[in-house]
Amino acid sequence: RKWERFVEGGNIPSILLLGFVYVAYVLIGGVVFWKLEGDLGMKDVSYLRENKERLLSTYPCLNQADTSKVGLSLKSNYTADGFWKFTSSAVFAATVVTTIGYGNICPSTTGGQIFCVFFALFGIPLNIVVLNRVGKMTNTASLSHVLLQTCTRFFIHFVCYICGAVLFFIMPMIVFKQQEDWTNAEAIYYCFISLSTIGFGDFVADSNPDKYYPDWYSFLIASWIFFGMAWLALVINHSIEILERLNNYFKKQFKKNDNQ
Amino acid sequence: RKWERFVEGGNIPSILLLGFVYVAYVLIGGVVFWKLEGDLGMKDVSYLRENKERLLSTYPCLNQADTSKVGLSLKSNYTADGFWKFTSSAVFAATVVTTIGYGNICPSTTGGQIFCVFFALFGIPLNIVVLNRVGKMTNTASLSHVLLQTCTRFFIHFVCYICGAVLFFIMPMIVFKQQEDWTNAEAIYYCFISLSTIGFGDFVADSNPDKYYPDWYSFLIASWIFFGMAWLALVINHSIEILERLNNYFKKQFKKNDNQ
Ligand SMILES: [K+]
Ligand SMILES: [K+]
Repeated sequence: RKWERFVEGGNIPSILLLGFVYVAYVLIGGVVFWKLEGDLGMKDVSYLRENKERLLSTYPCLNQADTSKVGLSLKSNYTADGFWKFTSSAVFAATVVTTIGYGNICPSTTGGQIFCVFFALFGIPLNIVVLNRVGKMTNTASLSHVLLQTCTRFFIHFVCYICGAVLFFIMPMIVFKQQEDWTNAEAIYYCFISLSTIGFGDFVADSNPDKYYPDWYSFLIASWIFFGMAWLALVINHSIEILERLNNYFKKQFKKNDNQ
Repeated sequence: RKWERFVEGGNIPSILLLGFVYVAYVLIGGVVFWKLEGDLGMKDVSYLRENKERLLSTYPCLNQADTSKVGLSLKSNYTADGFWKFTSSAVFAATVVTTIGYGNICPSTTGGQIFCVFFALFGIPLNIVVLNRVGKMTNTASLSHVLLQTCTRFFIHFVCYICGAVLFFIMPMIVFKQQEDWTNAEAIYYCFISLSTIGFGDFVADSNPDKYYPDWYSFLIASWIFFGMAWLALVINHSIEILERLNNYFKKQFKKNDNQ
């Protein structure tokens, strides 16, 4: 009976279908961006390379070290050869539907920009629905709230928050520190800025052209962002509940003063 | 009687209080970022300027036009003198709580990064609560849904969408085209990327150091983003409702097939 309720609450077949639609949507979007931007991206790179060669031949006094000192990294532009590959296009599509939008890659053709608008218009709601389902499922799966006392419930919530913080902040911090050479503060900052969907793009994992990343790295980051966002959305919803209660309290106070 | 219901539904005193708390929160955040980042920002600028002068004196063959050709705009860095001013810090704080996060300005000190995390942790829920209230208020204010027929309701929704599209996309497009010299497609792309909170930061209004903007411009952008986000959130919620209905339909089909 309990298992049946779990299935009812979690909608397992429906979640599989939704997840399939979601992944297919992102991958198809990635392919379209790849096709729309890929050619131009190659042109951009060759244009930059030409410009660089012309600059270096016109001014033989210049060298790599001097130009990079003032923020002109010709080397990175050079290594990012054919930037809009399929993998990076799919990553870009994922940053659009999650509304993280790091902005380290952006569509520069008119076609790409217009497609981006329509892709986001349907992709963002889809992403919200999928994340809500996952959040609800973990909620249903973890415990049947109704049977527990307030104190126990509070304790379990607290443990869930600690576990989430370790799983989505402390452990990724250690991985990023190792792979990206960031400080502890920078890694935590990156984790929070990504999962809260702010996505400044000042730190972006798996995107340093001077580094070689292990194969499991992209997959780990994708799962981390997906489940971390679902978890942080739960935490933020909790904060909203608390804020709403505060607001209701003030409203009641206001009415009381009004009636007196 | 109707007016009373409107006041009850819209929570006018509560919304004023909330709005006040919201604005105060963003402004205080702006002041903190200004203090935390301001000194370092000045140091960065003077460091860049020194580097530029050293580069230009070492290589007298170089000039402004040649360096900007390869993406090295020393001019912009120069004009962005003391970047973390109070106004830009407040704008930055607003991009944090709305989760737009353009990323054209980012905190670079450890203190600024840590403050940013805690500022966002409470600011994002506050922003969601305020936007929800505004969205609910316009919903309540526009019409009493219950009394109308489905057909009329559909028509009024349609008109609301058209009005919103004109107010939050077409009119800003004309303004941005004039003030920022963007094409139509770029302006629409910027509007959507901002209001959907993706915020790539490839186009950012009111931030070109080579341009002089009128006084009303910042204020207009702030109101546009605030009300536009509330409106787009309503639209996206509508899309989610439609997606949920589709999902429920598929679920029923699945169960029907299961029972047969
Ligand atoms: K962003
Ligand atoms: K964002």
